[in-house]
Amino acid sequence: MKRLAILGSTGSIGQSTLSIVEQFPERYSVVAVAAGRNLDEAFAQTVRWRPQVVSLATEELAGQLSARLRQAGVTGIDVVYGTEGTVACSTLPDADFVVSAIVGVAGLEATHAAILAGKPLGLANKECMVAAGEILTRAAREHNVPILPIDSEHNAVHQCLRVGAHAEVKNIWLTASGGPFRTLPLDQFASITPEQALKHPTWVMGRRITIDSASMLNKGLEIIEACRLFDVPASQVRVTVHPQSTVHSLVEYVDGSILAQISVTDMRLPILYALAFPERPASTLTFDMASLRHLEFEQPDFERFPCLRLAYEAAEKGGAHCIALNAADEVAVEAFLDRKIPFMGIPRTIEQVLASTTEAHPATIAGVLAADREARQTARALLA
Amino acid sequence: MKRLAILGSTGSIGQSTLSIVEQFPERYSVVAVAAGRNLDEAFAQTVRWRPQVVSLATEELAGQLSARLRQAGVTGIDVVYGTEGTVACSTLPDADFVVSAIVGVAGLEATHAAILAGKPLGLANKECMVAAGEILTRAAREHNVPILPIDSEHNAVHQCLRVGAHAEVKNIWLTASGGPFRTLPLDQFASITPEQALKHPTWVMGRRITIDSASMLNKGLEIIEACRLFDVPASQVRVTVHPQSTVHSLVEYVDGSILAQISVTDMRLPILYALAFPERPASTLTFDMASLRHLEFEQPDFERFPCLRLAYEAAEKGGAHCIALNAADEVAVEAFLDRKIPFMGIPRTIEQVLASTTEAHPATIAGVLAADREARQTARALLA
Repeated sequence: MKRLAILGSTGSIGQSTLSIVEQFPERYSVVAVAAGRNLDEAFAQTVRWRPQVVSLATEELAGQLSARLRQAGVTGIDVVYGTEGTVACSTLPDADFVVSAIVGVAGLEATHAAILAGKPLGLANKECMVAAGEILTRAAREHNVPILPIDSEHNAVHQCLRVGAHAEVKNIWLTASGGPFRTLPLDQFASITPEQALKHPTWVMGRRITIDSASMLNKGLEIIEACRLFDVPASQVRVTVHPQSTVHSLVEYVDGSILAQISVTDMRLPILYALAFPERPASTLTFDMASLRHLEFEQPDFERFPCLRLAYEAAEKGGAHCIALNAADEVAVEAFLDRKIPFMGIPRTIEQVLASTTEAHPATIAGVLAADREARQTARALLA
Repeated sequence: MKRLAILGSTGSIGQSTLSIVEQFPERYSVVAVAAGRNLDEAFAQTVRWRPQVVSLATEELAGQLSARLRQAGVTGIDVVYGTEGTVACSTLPDADFVVSAIVGVAGLEATHAAILAGKPLGLANKECMVAAGEILTRAAREHNVPILPIDSEHNAVHQCLRVGAHAEVKNIWLTASGGPFRTLPLDQFASITPEQALKHPTWVMGRRITIDSASMLNKGLEIIEACRLFDVPASQVRVTVHPQSTVHSLVEYVDGSILAQISVTDMRLPILYALAFPERPASTLTFDMASLRHLEFEQPDFERFPCLRLAYEAAEKGGAHCIALNAADEVAVEAFLDRKIPFMGIPRTIEQVLASTTEAHPATIAGVLAADREARQTARALLA
């Protein structure tokens, strides 16, 4: 029985993780959930899963949850809050595995603490690896903690990497759906509206990641994530546009063999893989090979999607530049959704913030968070 | 340094193996070659590679080679012949690895002897596994001998099987190019000529295997081979038609993940994989991912390609039925190439021979060879 701490339990990945626990009660139980601001869902999860610890965003929300649990006659549950609360979840002695699925840099400290506490990690939080990948992977190596990627691309890469040695990897090929503007001519990019950008062809996701998909900045973050997770330089992480999102990524070996992973587009699959690794429990998430007909691939267009180029530049410089890329994008996407800047204002903002970022490699999470705040301020100042 | 015994050194796989040895002189040397009837090539190989033992098909050829070697001043080489000679190659004490690439059942005894002598095996001989797979895999298990498949499909499967456990495999998907008649309407199959059938869209191969590709009997043999090599029932070996021959095969796991192997269509790649396993040396056999555009898949048509159905039936019954399938096909293909029967006469002949085959599982190579002779006689009698 693997006892899970789920950071971000009320989000999409958190809920999918709980659906896996529901499906495999003989394999998994829940000992801690960090639930953020969704009080109703946090209450429901606590009643259903009876974790030892529940963390909420604030003291006030924690108080409200405690009161509701008392009313419902649910006792013996430790209700905590804030960053300290999330860390209490991720380092709970009884937790055998931590699912890190809090969006943004908010989950960073708890994720780092989990590694320091020696907890194997399922990582769904892209920003953690982008902003603090150097720190997290160093800590993971030192504490011999496996990090299992919970997103379809890196999970696919993780699988494909099992058929060869690290030194035998020539290139990692991340597939990209290409987003809603894959075929849009460059001269129409100026008039892209938030409504158009929010329509993703294959995945239903949060607002920022959907815009990041449209600008391909999301793929850029994944390039950086791949560099950190799999310890390869940016030049060895390549992108191929694959509109069907059927092949989730590929690994090319020096002997000429390329391994690819194919599956349905359902996040429960990488979650199950991460939870069960190295085993593969039988699931109902079947891809119908017999009805597979076409797979298409094309080269990414760096002119229409300058975010890709910016991400490669940040990946090569590492440290503060990766932090700035992520932070500037988040601010710029917000401005785009608020109709303050056009779609191509997103890469312009990022480029300007990167240009004013000095090369640095924060060695602590506090340093990362400071660089993140600084980049956000720079971006906001630029947009004001 | 891995010292190789190459059975079938003058054939296509044998020569490709030697080109790999040429490319990696620090990794491989040649200690034995079984060269068949090609005296000139056997002489050239002996001079070039200086093996300890060379085997030819007959005593006469062996005498001729000895004379030529003496003339050329090449001494200290043991020239042998016949089945005994091939076995001397495959069991040579100094050989660390045996490449079994003699076409047909002729290589069977030497391949079996190699396993009994504990030699790791690169197996390019499909008929060995089809006719004697039960005996060979049992011997390989007992003597703890790895068998590495040297054909693009099973080599791809071998790679894809490395990311999960045997019990976690749901289906093995062999890709098939579909051959030259993939899109030909059923009513035109009656008039197929040998010239049409000999034009394979992607691979250049021998005459029988090219006809077997056109009838898809070749894929049928591979189904049986997969059952034996990977210890799965025929129901778990599926076929998907993939005209580009870019994906060489796939493995579907019970959790829903499918792993696929992609590479150039060059036999040196599976040969190198087999020789170097579990390592992957850097090669120049690069697949250009950046220019990959389309991959197409379709379901096989059992009506136009009845050989597929016959192979599944033989695979399920095993033993003598697999032997009969292979033997009857070889006789029928010869008759088709001699214009004695039409193209669809190939599956008709096989079906009739299978119908008159009694269920049996020969436990010895002699028993396999007897069953093979019997099936050929039945086929010839039917066609007379």
